Amino acid sequence: MSNSFGKLFTVTTFGESHGPAIGCVIDGCPPGLAIAAGDFRADLDRRATGRSRFTSQRHEPDAVEILSGVFEGRSTGTPIALLIRNTDARSKDYGELLDTFRPGHADYTYWQKYGIRDPRGGGRSSARETTMRVAAGVVAKKWLAEHHGIRVRAHVAQIGGLVPRAFDAAAIEGNPFFWPDATMLDEVEAAIDALRKAGDSVGARIDVVAEGVPPGWGEPIYGKLDGDLAAALMSINAVKAVGIGDGFDVVTQKGTQHRDELAPDGFLSNHAGGILGGISSGQAVTASVAFKPTSSILVHGRSVNLAGDAVEVRTKGRHDPCVGLRAVPIVEAMVALVLIDHALRHRAQCGDVGRVEPRIAGAAPR
Amino acid sequence: MSNSFGKLFTVTTFGESHGPAIGCVIDGCPPGLAIAAGDFRADLDRRATGRSRFTSQRHEPDAVEILSGVFEGRSTGTPIALLIRNTDARSKDYGELLDTFRPGHADYTYWQKYGIRDPRGGGRSSARETTMRVAAGVVAKKWLAEHHGIRVRAHVAQIGGLVPRAFDAAAIEGNPFFWPDATMLDEVEAAIDALRKAGDSVGARIDVVAEGVPPGWGEPIYGKLDGDLAAALMSINAVKAVGIGDGFDVVTQKGTQHRDELAPDGFLSNHAGGILGGISSGQAVTASVAFKPTSSILVHGRSVNLAGDAVEVRTKGRHDPCVGLRAVPIVEAMVALVLIDHALRHRAQCGDVGRVEPRIAGAAPR
Amino acid sequence: MSNSFGKLFTVTTFGESHGPAIGCVIDGCPPGLAIAAGDFRADLDRRATGRSRFTSQRHEPDAVEILSGVFEGRSTGTPIALLIRNTDARSKDYGELLDTFRPGHADYTYWQKYGIRDPRGGGRSSARETTMRVAAGVVAKKWLAEHHGIRVRAHVAQIGGLVPRAFDAAAIEGNPFFWPDATMLDEVEAAIDALRKAGDSVGARIDVVAEGVPPGWGEPIYGKLDGDLAAALMSINAVKAVGIGDGFDVVTQKGTQHRDELAPDGFLSNHAGGILGGISSGQAVTASVAFKPTSSILVHGRSVNLAGDAVEVRTKGRHDPCVGLRAVPIVEAMVALVLIDHALRHRAQCGDVGRVEPRIAGAAPR
Amino acid sequence: MSNSFGKLFTVTTFGESHGPAIGCVIDGCPPGLAIAAGDFRADLDRRATGRSRFTSQRHEPDAVEILSGVFEGRSTGTPIALLIRNTDARSKDYGELLDTFRPGHADYTYWQKYGIRDPRGGGRSSARETTMRVAAGVVAKKWLAEHHGIRVRAHVAQIGGLVPRAFDAAAIEGNPFFWPDATMLDEVEAAIDALRKAGDSVGARIDVVAEGVPPGWGEPIYGKLDGDLAAALMSINAVKAVGIGDGFDVVTQKGTQHRDELAPDGFLSNHAGGILGGISSGQAVTASVAFKPTSSILVHGRSVNLAGDAVEVRTKGRHDPCVGLRAVPIVEAMVALVLIDHALRHRAQCGDVGRVEPRIAGAAPR
Repeated sequence: MSNSFGKLFTVTTFGESHGPAIGCVIDGCPPGLAIAAGDFRADLDRRATGRSRFTSQRHEPDAVEILSGVFEGRSTGTPIALLIRNTDARSKDYGELLDTFRPGHADYTYWQKYGIRDPRGGGRSSARETTMRVAAGVVAKKWLAEHHGIRVRAHVAQIGGLVPRAFDAAAIEGNPFFWPDATMLDEVEAAIDALRKAGDSVGARIDVVAEGVPPGWGEPIYGKLDGDLAAALMSINAVKAVGIGDGFDVVTQKGTQHRDELAPDGFLSNHAGGILGGISSGQAVTASVAFKPTSSILVHGRSVNLAGDAVEVRTKGRHDPCVGLRAVPIVEAMVALVLIDHALRHRAQCGDVGRVEPRIAGAAPR
Repeated sequence: MSNSFGKLFTVTTFGESHGPAIGCVIDGCPPGLAIAAGDFRADLDRRATGRSRFTSQRHEPDAVEILSGVFEGRSTGTPIALLIRNTDARSKDYGELLDTFRPGHADYTYWQKYGIRDPRGGGRSSARETTMRVAAGVVAKKWLAEHHGIRVRAHVAQIGGLVPRAFDAAAIEGNPFFWPDATMLDEVEAAIDALRKAGDSVGARIDVVAEGVPPGWGEPIYGKLDGDLAAALMSINAVKAVGIGDGFDVVTQKGTQHRDELAPDGFLSNHAGGILGGISSGQAVTASVAFKPTSSILVHGRSVNLAGDAVEVRTKGRHDPCVGLRAVPIVEAMVALVLIDHALRHRAQCGDVGRVEPRIAGAAPR
Repeated sequence: MSNSFGKLFTVTTFGESHGPAIGCVIDGCPPGLAIAAGDFRADLDRRATGRSRFTSQRHEPDAVEILSGVFEGRSTGTPIALLIRNTDARSKDYGELLDTFRPGHADYTYWQKYGIRDPRGGGRSSARETTMRVAAGVVAKKWLAEHHGIRVRAHVAQIGGLVPRAFDAAAIEGNPFFWPDATMLDEVEAAIDALRKAGDSVGARIDVVAEGVPPGWGEPIYGKLDGDLAAALMSINAVKAVGIGDGFDVVTQKGTQHRDELAPDGFLSNHAGGILGGISSGQAVTASVAFKPTSSILVHGRSVNLAGDAVEVRTKGRHDPCVGLRAVPIVEAMVALVLIDHALRHRAQCGDVGRVEPRIAGAAPR
Repeated sequence: MSNSFGKLFTVTTFGESHGPAIGCVIDGCPPGLAIAAGDFRADLDRRATGRSRFTSQRHEPDAVEILSGVFEGRSTGTPIALLIRNTDARSKDYGELLDTFRPGHADYTYWQKYGIRDPRGGGRSSARETTMRVAAGVVAKKWLAEHHGIRVRAHVAQIGGLVPRAFDAAAIEGNPFFWPDATMLDEVEAAIDALRKAGDSVGARIDVVAEGVPPGWGEPIYGKLDGDLAAALMSINAVKAVGIGDGFDVVTQKGTQHRDELAPDGFLSNHAGGILGGISSGQAVTASVAFKPTSSILVHGRSVNLAGDAVEVRTKGRHDPCVGLRAVPIVEAMVALVLIDHALRHRAQCGDVGRVEPRIAGAAPR
């Protein structure tokens, strides 16, 4: 079950980067939800690798076929299988890849684990798998919006040393960097271009906010909402750290500063990121995610081959200076998948707990 | 199953802070492991709340009773149940607690979720639950050491603004702060004392290293070793962020800097924290964890009561200026529990994959 | 997780026949359910081994202690741990047991699986474990009755060749055989006495009916209500077969005879046992369970010892001529546990599906 | 996860009878297993609905496409996705089906559960789903044969009142009834023909034997090998009862008769069906399964429509007088899937338990 995610709204993905297809099976979707093949277009385009010259140049139409679970445009409660054929798989010549372990990639660890690996485009460890996360996330987002008015949105909050000087939510979708400060676009573009020319890459940070999450979602002790968010976000390729609310900043905070006080008309702050004791508080749920710099860069790297000899690795072709740039819809998808799973889990156990007063309004999102 | 952790080596904990007892059931332990009641003493003492004047003053003998699963000193493969009676539970007067939601605590969220809550000492959301994590971790550590020579050790890497100026592994267990720089102990002590006097608290960061983990543990895509570590560590009370390897520092790193190159005699660095593509590489597995400042402080805080009125919360009695200080054995335990679970999962699927060459030695731990 | 049962209402049991205690942890219980230690008395007495001279003579008070999850008499939604101390464990001299594999018991298979086994009273494989199933079942029954008016009742439907000539529900609880035909009690008693004198045993069949189950519970394809009932009932010690509805009788039925036709005022028969396509139909859910004859009998049996030599096994002391006789509350408990689990699972996925017409009334239970 | 089966070797199926495709994802397959598209042919043909005039006349080529998890002919340890396009789906006119609940089918229960249903050919509840069980079972059988020499074979043991008068294993695959007594084929054929003419159907019993299963597989208490077999077999469409070993016959057996005695050169009988205490004994694992008579028969039946009115149901077209006849490979597949799952589960927990003596040989299969 290592390729499945979620306890009640369960997504199982399959497929290799250069195999015949990738796909997923969504099990546990509530019945009656309107779903059409066209629903997946927007978020898949947001993730698309060929989106701009700032990301990798692979062009996949990524047309989703719905194989099951939908009848006359509505989910039936049975598994929803989604399929995308790999049409742009150029992997005739992978002999060299099979022989060498690329630094920073999963080549060596897959080899050690399985004693066999599909070297074409990274095989199963390719970020291509995240396409199906985004697709499944579309279904989750739709249900969350329709049933709870929840909206999950992420943006790029840091690229290397660059940090937005202002935050304008409206700007985010208007540029290829999901960057919230329109005044800095030239700066960001120049930085990415410089990396591309240097054949190097850089890390990024993505922040995500889910607004409208009602209080009470999340299960102590080992099914905490933040614990499941951490697992979900850390499972994305290239992610190395996850913070909830103020994240690592809490280390230097005082208790008087961090604890979010309450007043009759709402919480007075949201350092906790909308989660207390693993359960949502009704405030905005916030998280931050760190993406490492792309490992496939043009600068040569030292490695070893199957014979154990020292070799130099040369990455050819596609090169993505900042892998985090196209992770925004992936981050959103993983948050949405965690939320819908907990919505169902909460309803299962506590579906007969009525609305409990006092219901404290959330503070403005940080 | 929200109170269970682990897929094959499964720990289920139960118990409230001031109920009759806390306990756990360990299911899936390999048979033949020597286990005695005395084995739990050392780590429980390391975690003990009454350890020093720098942590909360509750004194619990925390004597573990083994209820099942061990015959003539060895695990039989059946569930190992561990029990600790709560002997120091003073909760006669909890009326006030029941009426008020403490800021920074799970009081409000439990109330919203369940419509009922045990207010005595935080009930289920109390850090007392982590006692059983430590106990279960002792079993995991023992098996990992005996079967793989694995050693999991954590230390406090930051308290508020204080960062060790030197790292001496031998110093860590010699002071009540698990602090790796013996020359700074007066400084740390003074800082904690100042917080105590001010009735305030501060956050902390704990770093953990698992040495001896063989390559190949961890399951792509949603059972990644780092994903499971993130969930495990984030599930600890008061944790707000988790990083693997260089954690959030990767945001500002270049690809040429981050990717760990390989040479015939080993990796040349360990920015990845010993995990690539969710699978261990054979290097030391490293992680960092951020603990928020204690919410139960003597400084009064604003809140609301059950009637929805504004009230002032006054924490009496015990007060822990830095909750992170006693989390070191808890962090170690969670890492050990993840590792043994993946050891068994790896053996299940890949038990007939022989040793694969080349086997690259790990670099020195960072 | 092999000692856990249920996906959302999860029961984990632990303990050996002659260890310090047996117990269970119920995770996922809806909050607000009234639970008191006294609630367990009735069903535990119905199961008690010392109930009459017709069952084994071990006397255990079986007093249940509630360790957690209940506050001021109501479930809080956190794990409910139940504990029973083993007070009548006489196992000083188990050397002989350790050396020999009793025919019909799990001695040999535990030995082969684990390479170690607790021989005292059968250890983990003892029917003593079923005490905790009954205890957990009490909680499930209570919730099912209060929230859905469901009533689960079982009776002994066959003892060896004896079959009730009449069915009187009122008679069942009035005799130690849970036998529905009061006119046959002398006959049944004589049969059991004869077996006891002969030192032999016989099998039994138990029928169980759950009335009031609403339509819609059960999850296709691998979470079918009947599939989960089969697993639950087969997991009881000594069970060798499970039938739903007409069970094995369907082999000789015609389609015209078996398929339950529908009319506006209800189903016209209930051969299916209230389940179609793995989902409850609203009719009574019915099942039958076959218990093998007790293996611990006074008649000597051939076996081998640890050295591989042929030996003769002599069972001393307690002897239960028909182990099925005290399984009635165990069967009820397992059915109740499956039902509450599916009640929660159904609410999770389909909690927003309103009542759908036409709602067809169930036929009278067969 | 209700559409997933198996804990470590996990099969998730999807697809409706008349949707675009059916498929499955196998997660957890050990790496290095040789798998080719042609491997599925034989068992799919054995199951094929158009096999002979004695089963339903739907003709599907059922060509399996391997979408992932196999590289250069070997499993890589990543998910193996299998796909079969539905080419013979004639469902243009399903208006009548949507309006009426067929007796003996899941139409009514799906409607009550989900409030929506795909009426075309039974949708998800169609036996077409079992095609993917057979496909996944092929992979399981292959691994079991290669790694443990295990052979799983089933046959039809009863059709209505017809019981084989002799058992000839070699005869089974030589006739369309999987019938072990070649001398009775005319009799069987006549019986089926008579049913077809009458527009009626009859039940069947299938027996299955797994030879070569080593001792030690199966996990007490709720992961028992027989419990999991019961769930697996009961989950097959139309199954109403499952027996292990002597099944319901144990009800009338004496203890002296049932318990399988042991001798240095083997068990002296196999009434238990190769499982004691939920763990395999090393003897042949045997089970029996009861299939109800086909519900889709030409004889008209009473039912109700969506408006709640009484209607008469007329099944047109395909008609299968004995649905059990093509279930032989399905039964084998489910047994194989349970066995491989337990093989991996056993290796996980007990992989370091060496061979334990005495190792008692199994008796001849019953």
